[in-house]
Amino acid sequence: MIANTPTPPYYAVIFTSIRSSIDAGYADMANRMVELASQQPGFLGAESARDGVGITVSYWQDLASIANWKAHAEHVLAQQFGREQWYQAYKTRIAFVERDYQFVAGE
Amino acid sequence: MIANTPTPPYYAVIFTSIRSSIDAGYADMANRMVELASQQPGFLGAESARDGVGITVSYWQDLASIANWKAHAEHVLAQQFGREQWYQAYKTRIAFVERDYQFVAGE
Repeated sequence: MIANTPTPPYYAVIFTSIRSSIDAGYADMANRMVELASQQPGFLGAESARDGVGITVSYWQDLASIANWKAHAEHVLAQQFGREQWYQAYKTRIAFVERDYQFVAGE
Repeated sequence: MIANTPTPPYYAVIFTSIRSSIDAGYADMANRMVELASQQPGFLGAESARDGVGITVSYWQDLASIANWKAHAEHVLAQQFGREQWYQAYKTRIAFVERDYQFVAGE
């Protein structure tokens, strides 16, 4: 789904990753993190796709919301597992969304 | 691949899309657009994945580079085809990348 974010400005966290060959526990943890993120203050939506590279973009109200989510105890544990097991490499970019535009067929 | 972008700041264009059922010409045009984008001034890299939703993030030196690419004649034509045929919906977000961090296993 395309995230139904509010009118900018807001923030985006672009998380691009290459998985390792280790699958144990990954899908459950990934689903749990999406669920947990969506419950955090300031969460505005997320989009995710993987084919070869994985791209997850989550949207947040401000930098404080992003910092809170990064420091969430269960998320910290997931990040540690990620580095130890599931990811060969990742890059996280914090970006300030200045504007957007959209297209919907038939509208 | 994870785009090998320079130290921030720079810009990201986050293009999230839902395809229509029309495939004719899409793959060729998508590949051509990646090739053409990478030749534009200010292009810093791109990442792309699709499963259900498609996410393409392209990285640019500044807003002028993004505006130039958006107005490129061949890209304008592709955008028009996209709206008429290939996309059910899309959303484009222009974002200023303020910082990044990365992880590479074994480093």
